[in-house]
Amino acid sequence: MLVVMRPGATAEEVRAVVATIEELGYEARPMPGRQRTTVGLVGNDGRVDGSRIEALSGVAELIHVTKPYKQVSREWRSEPTIVRLAGGVTIGGADLAIMAGPCSVESESQILEAARAVRAAGATVLRGGAFKPRSSPYSFQGLGREGLRLLALARAETGLLIITEAMDAEQLDLVAEVADIVQIGARNMQNYSLLRSAGRGGKPVLLKRGLSATVQDLLLSAEYILAEGNPDVILCERGLRGFDSVTRNLFDLSAIPVVHHLSHLPIIADPSHGTGRRDMVIPMARAAVAAGADGLLIEVHPTPERALSDGAQSLDPAQFATLMREARVIAEAIGRSIPVPVGASA
Amino acid sequence: MLVVMRPGATAEEVRAVVATIEELGYEARPMPGRQRTTVGLVGNDGRVDGSRIEALSGVAELIHVTKPYKQVSREWRSEPTIVRLAGGVTIGGADLAIMAGPCSVESESQILEAARAVRAAGATVLRGGAFKPRSSPYSFQGLGREGLRLLALARAETGLLIITEAMDAEQLDLVAEVADIVQIGARNMQNYSLLRSAGRGGKPVLLKRGLSATVQDLLLSAEYILAEGNPDVILCERGLRGFDSVTRNLFDLSAIPVVHHLSHLPIIADPSHGTGRRDMVIPMARAAVAAGADGLLIEVHPTPERALSDGAQSLDPAQFATLMREARVIAEAIGRSIPVPVGASA
Amino acid sequence: MLVVMRPGATAEEVRAVVATIEELGYEARPMPGRQRTTVGLVGNDGRVDGSRIEALSGVAELIHVTKPYKQVSREWRSEPTIVRLAGGVTIGGADLAIMAGPCSVESESQILEAARAVRAAGATVLRGGAFKPRSSPYSFQGLGREGLRLLALARAETGLLIITEAMDAEQLDLVAEVADIVQIGARNMQNYSLLRSAGRGGKPVLLKRGLSATVQDLLLSAEYILAEGNPDVILCERGLRGFDSVTRNLFDLSAIPVVHHLSHLPIIADPSHGTGRRDMVIPMARAAVAAGADGLLIEVHPTPERALSDGAQSLDPAQFATLMREARVIAEAIGRSIPVPVGASA
Amino acid sequence: MLVVMRPGATAEEVRAVVATIEELGYEARPMPGRQRTTVGLVGNDGRVDGSRIEALSGVAELIHVTKPYKQVSREWRSEPTIVRLAGGVTIGGADLAIMAGPCSVESESQILEAARAVRAAGATVLRGGAFKPRSSPYSFQGLGREGLRLLALARAETGLLIITEAMDAEQLDLVAEVADIVQIGARNMQNYSLLRSAGRGGKPVLLKRGLSATVQDLLLSAEYILAEGNPDVILCERGLRGFDSVTRNLFDLSAIPVVHHLSHLPIIADPSHGTGRRDMVIPMARAAVAAGADGLLIEVHPTPERALSDGAQSLDPAQFATLMREARVIAEAIGRSIPVPVGASA
Repeated sequence: MLVVMRPGATAEEVRAVVATIEELGYEARPMPGRQRTTVGLVGNDGRVDGSRIEALSGVAELIHVTKPYKQVSREWRSEPTIVRLAGGVTIGGADLAIMAGPCSVESESQILEAARAVRAAGATVLRGGAFKPRSSPYSFQGLGREGLRLLALARAETGLLIITEAMDAEQLDLVAEVADIVQIGARNMQNYSLLRSAGRGGKPVLLKRGLSATVQDLLLSAEYILAEGNPDVILCERGLRGFDSVTRNLFDLSAIPVVHHLSHLPIIADPSHGTGRRDMVIPMARAAVAAGADGLLIEVHPTPERALSDGAQSLDPAQFATLMREARVIAEAIGRSIPVPVGASA
Repeated sequence: MLVVMRPGATAEEVRAVVATIEELGYEARPMPGRQRTTVGLVGNDGRVDGSRIEALSGVAELIHVTKPYKQVSREWRSEPTIVRLAGGVTIGGADLAIMAGPCSVESESQILEAARAVRAAGATVLRGGAFKPRSSPYSFQGLGREGLRLLALARAETGLLIITEAMDAEQLDLVAEVADIVQIGARNMQNYSLLRSAGRGGKPVLLKRGLSATVQDLLLSAEYILAEGNPDVILCERGLRGFDSVTRNLFDLSAIPVVHHLSHLPIIADPSHGTGRRDMVIPMARAAVAAGADGLLIEVHPTPERALSDGAQSLDPAQFATLMREARVIAEAIGRSIPVPVGASA
Repeated sequence: MLVVMRPGATAEEVRAVVATIEELGYEARPMPGRQRTTVGLVGNDGRVDGSRIEALSGVAELIHVTKPYKQVSREWRSEPTIVRLAGGVTIGGADLAIMAGPCSVESESQILEAARAVRAAGATVLRGGAFKPRSSPYSFQGLGREGLRLLALARAETGLLIITEAMDAEQLDLVAEVADIVQIGARNMQNYSLLRSAGRGGKPVLLKRGLSATVQDLLLSAEYILAEGNPDVILCERGLRGFDSVTRNLFDLSAIPVVHHLSHLPIIADPSHGTGRRDMVIPMARAAVAAGADGLLIEVHPTPERALSDGAQSLDPAQFATLMREARVIAEAIGRSIPVPVGASA
Repeated sequence: MLVVMRPGATAEEVRAVVATIEELGYEARPMPGRQRTTVGLVGNDGRVDGSRIEALSGVAELIHVTKPYKQVSREWRSEPTIVRLAGGVTIGGADLAIMAGPCSVESESQILEAARAVRAAGATVLRGGAFKPRSSPYSFQGLGREGLRLLALARAETGLLIITEAMDAEQLDLVAEVADIVQIGARNMQNYSLLRSAGRGGKPVLLKRGLSATVQDLLLSAEYILAEGNPDVILCERGLRGFDSVTRNLFDLSAIPVVHHLSHLPIIADPSHGTGRRDMVIPMARAAVAAGADGLLIEVHPTPERALSDGAQSLDPAQFATLMREARVIAEAIGRSIPVPVGASA
C-alpha cells in the first residue's frame, strides 16, 4: 500500500503516518519526491485496512497496489531511479551508460587491450566474465578468481568501472570485492536465493531478463532485490527465445518503453546477446538508443576471431568506435547524451 | 542457378548465355548491374548441369542457389531494389517512405482530415483499409468499394499515393484500380493463390510478415510474387506472436537488418500493429529508423478515441508530427533521409 | 444472445420467442436439445435489449454472450456437434474418425495402394493432397485436377470417404465435386474470403489450426463458417510454431480438452504435421486419443522413402496398422471406440 | 569418446582399454550392457586421437561424440537408466512411477491426509514443497524446515517415498536428509552451481525442464549432474512458455519420445503445472502415459479450494483415483504398468 501525502504536507505529518504504519505492525518507507512525499507500507501479505491512516492529517490518498510487485513500480516512485557509481558515472539519468568489453576475461593482455579500446571510444564501464554460465559442462567456464584479479588490474589502470557476473552466494562475495556492478544473468533471473543475497549486498545489481520472462516476471525478480533493501537495480534486455534460428535470440526492444512505463528502474540493452551476430549488433544498438535505453552492454574483443567464447557476436574496437559515434547523434535527437571520451573529439 | 558474367562482358556474350539457357529448356533473366551483369536461370526444380554454360565466353562463374528462394536473394541481385512510384516517390533508396493514415476508411471527412494531417507532417503515402480482415465475423469489416472511392478522392485532393489491403483475387482487381501499392496482410502471407494473383498484377505489393513466419518464410512468400513476374515487392515487419500480453505483438526489429543481409528487397516497419499501444509507437518507430528500415507504416487517426478499429494504437496528428521530426534526425544520423513536407520548415 | 427455454417449454412458447426476435430485427435459430431448447439470436453487433424476450412465457434465462464467438460456443449449443457423412461415418460421436493416406496424390498406383492399406487397418476416410500449399514456389505443388480424379477413383474402388485441401474459391468448387470433407489448411486459417466461401458450400469443413493461432482464434475462424450457415466444421490440431527445432512443430495436445471445454465442435489431431518425425507419430497419435481427440489424421505412404513430399513424417502401412491396434485399446479405456475394419479381427 | 567392445570381448580386453585411456590422461568409465560393453572416455575437451585404442584387441569401434552432451546420450549408454529407490520403487523400468501430493506442505493434517489419499490410489512417492520458488517475494514461500519435518512424518506413517524441491546448496543439504528424490525446479534448470551441488550429492535428482529450454538444453543441464558423478537423474516435462493464455503453460508431450530417442534417462510428466487447470490434468495425464512417460507428478490436495498455492490445478482425492484407474489401462495397452495399491482391487 502507498500513502500519498498532499503537496506541502509537513515533515511532522509524514512522521505521524510512519508511526501509525509501524504501530499497525508494518514497515514504513517514506520517499520524498519533488512535488510530494509518498510513504510505502511494506510487510503486508494482502490488503491492509487503511482507515486509520486515511484519517491522518496531510494524507491525500491511499493506493492499494494490486500489481504483484510494489517497490519497483512507477506508482511506488514516480521519478526515475538514478544509480550513482564511483567517478560520477550514473545510470538512469540523461547520460547513457556504455558498458563494453569481452565476453570472458582470458588473459592480462586481452583484458587490458580491450579496456583501453572501449575507454577510448567512450565506454565508462568494463564488462568481462570471470565466472561464466555455459550450457555445456565441458565448455570454458571462465578464469574464476584469477579473472577477478585481472579485472581489478584493468580498473586500476584505466579508471573504468567493472561489471561482472556471479552465479551463487559465494561468487557474489568474491565479485563484490572487485566489481562496481554485480551482474545476475538471464539463466538466474528466477534464482531467488541469489536475488535475495544480492539484495542484502551493498553493490548495484544488473539483472538480465530471462529468455522466457514477461516484463512482469522481470520486475518481480527485481522486487526480490529491492525487498531486501537494495534499491540500485538496473534491468537489462538481452533477447528472448524465439522460433527463428536466423538470430540467436529475439531481441525485444519494446521492453524498454514498457519498463519505463511500469517502473522507475533504469533498463539497458545488450544487443550482442540479443542478436548473436556481429553484423546486427550495430543497427540494433542504434535502435535500442532510439527506443530510449538507459545504456548499452556490448561485447568488444581486441581480436574477435580468437575469442574463447561468443566471438561471433563481438565487435572489434574499430566497429565499436563507429557505433559510439552514430549512437551519440541518435541519443541527442531524443534529448539524451553519450559522453565524449576524455581527450577525444566527438 | 545464377550465371555471373565478367565485368566488361559484351552484350553479345550475354545474349549467348541467354540463348543457351533457353535451349536447355529453362527461362533466362538477364540483370544488368553497375559492375557486372548476372543472368538468372528460372524454371528448374533442382540442380542444373551447367557445364555448357560455364564454357561460354564472358562467364565468370555459376552460383548454384541452395537456399529455397532465389530471385529475392542478395546473391541473385546484389544491389537493392528500389520501387518507383508516381510523383517520384521511391521505396528502398536513401529516402524513407512514410505511409500513414487510419486503420479503416470510415467516412469522407475522416479520411480527408487524416490525409491532410499526415501530408502536412511529411507522409507521401496514405494508408486506410477498405476491406478489413477481422478475427471475428461480427466486427466491422470495412466500407468495401465505398472505402476505395473515398481513398481515390483523398488521392485526388491531396496528391498522396494510396496503399490498401486486398484479401482475395476479386478484391485485388478492385484495389488495383485505385491503389498505388496493394497490401497483403499478415494473415494472408501464405495465401499462395493471392500471392500468385498479386504477382501477375501490375501493382507494387506490400507483403506483411505473418505472426509466426520466419524471415525465410517471408522471403519465400515474396518469391511467389517475383516468380510470377512482379519485381516490386516491399516487405513489412509488423510484430510476431509473443508470450507477453503487455504488448499486442512482439515487434521484431532485428528482421530489418536480417532482410537487408539476405535480400535486395526493401523492408519497412509497422510499429502500430507491432506494439498495439499508442505510447509505444513513437519510441519503436524511432528504433525502426535507427535499425535501418526503408520506411514506416503508421496508424494516424484525426480522433483516435472515436476510431471504429485499432483506436488504441493510432496516433493523433500532433503525435505523428512530433515523431516525424525525431525520425528525420535519426535517419540523417545513419545517412538516410525523410523528406521535409512541401511548404514546411524542417 | 441465447434464450434458454425451461425444460418442458412448449413448441408454441418457442415459436413466440422466435417471432419476437424477428420483430426486433434479428434472426432466430431454435436449437432443440435433449433436455431443453435454446434459441440463438443472430445478427446483432453488440448487446441486445432483452427485456421483451425475458418477459415471454417459457423463457428460463438470457445469456449475453460476451465472448467474441457465438455459434461455436458450448453456451450456444451444449451437446457436441456430430458431423454425419456418407456410409454412416460420423465425427464427434463415440467413434473416432480415422483419416489416413499420403501427403500428396502422386499416381494412380500410389493412391490406390495407400487407400487399400489404410482401409485394411481401419481408416474410413482417405487423405491426399491434390492442391498443395508449399512454402517455396519451386516445390511440387500437387497434381491438381488430375489428383482429384485419382481420389475419386480411390473412393469408387475402396468405399473410403475423401478429404482434400482447397486454397481458394475456385479450388473449393472443384474439390467439393469429389471430396466428402473439404480441408482448409493452417496457412489459410485466417483467409476469411475462403472461410466464407466454405461456409456457403454444402460440404463439411476440416479447419486446421494456424501455427500461431490461439484456440480463440481458431474458434473465431470456425465462426466465419458457421455464420454463413454451414454447421459441419471439424477442427484440427496440427502443431504450433515452437522454438525447439528437434521437432518440426510443437504439437499442442492440450488444445483438445480446451476446445471440448469451450466449444461443441469436434476436434481431431494430426500428429504427422504435429511432430514431423515418423518415430514420434505413433506415441503422439496414442497420446491424442488418450487426450480425447475425436479422430486422427495420419500420413501413410506405401513407400515413404519415395514420397514427393513429407516422406520423413509418413508411416508405412505396417506401422499404421500397429498404431491402430494400440489406439483402439486406449480409446476403449476412456469410453470411445475405433471401429474394427470389415473382415479384420481386432 | 565411446569405445564399443565386440560382443564377447573378455574382461581382460576391457581392462586393457581402460588402462590405455588412463595412460592417455583421461578417465575411463566401463559400462557393461546386456549384449556388449562400452567404455566411456571422460575428461577431454575436444576430439581425442583414438588410434592407440582402436588398435586394441576386442574393440569394435570408436564413436566420436559430436553432440555437446555425452553421458546423458543414447550413444553413451543404449539401455535405459533405471533409478532404484527404497522399497523397490523404480523409475525408468516397466512400472510407471506415480508421484502425487500437494503443491506446498501446509500443516500436519493436510500432508498426512494427502499422503493417505494418494497412497490409496496407487502413488508410491509423495510430493510436497517445503521451500517454494514464487514469482513474487510477497507470496507464501513454504514452511521451510518445518515442512521437511512434516514430510518425514508422512513418510514414516505411510511408507511413501518423498520428493521435494531445493533452491540452493544449503537447502540441498537439508532436503537430502529427508527426501528420497531431490527436485530442481524449472526456474533453476540452468543454475549451474545448484546442478553441480546436486551432482556431488548422493540423492537421485528430478530435473524439471525450463519454460524456454530446448530438449538439448535440458539434457545439457542433466549432463552437469552426471559429470559430477551422480547418474540418477529423472527428467520432467512441465510445460513451456506459450502464447495462448487459455492454459498456464504449453505442455510439450512430444518431449517424452524425443528424450527417449536421444537419452537413456527416464522422463516423467507434470500435467498439473503443464496445464494449470484441474479439468485438463486428467486428459493430459492420460496422454502423457500414452506418449510413453516413465511416470507422473500430480498435484493432489485434500481440499483444493483451500490450498495456499496452486489450488486451481490440484485434483481432489476422488479425481486422482479415477485418473489412476484410466491411466492403468492405457499403460497396459503399451506394455507398461502402474502398480495396483496394496490392499486395493484394480
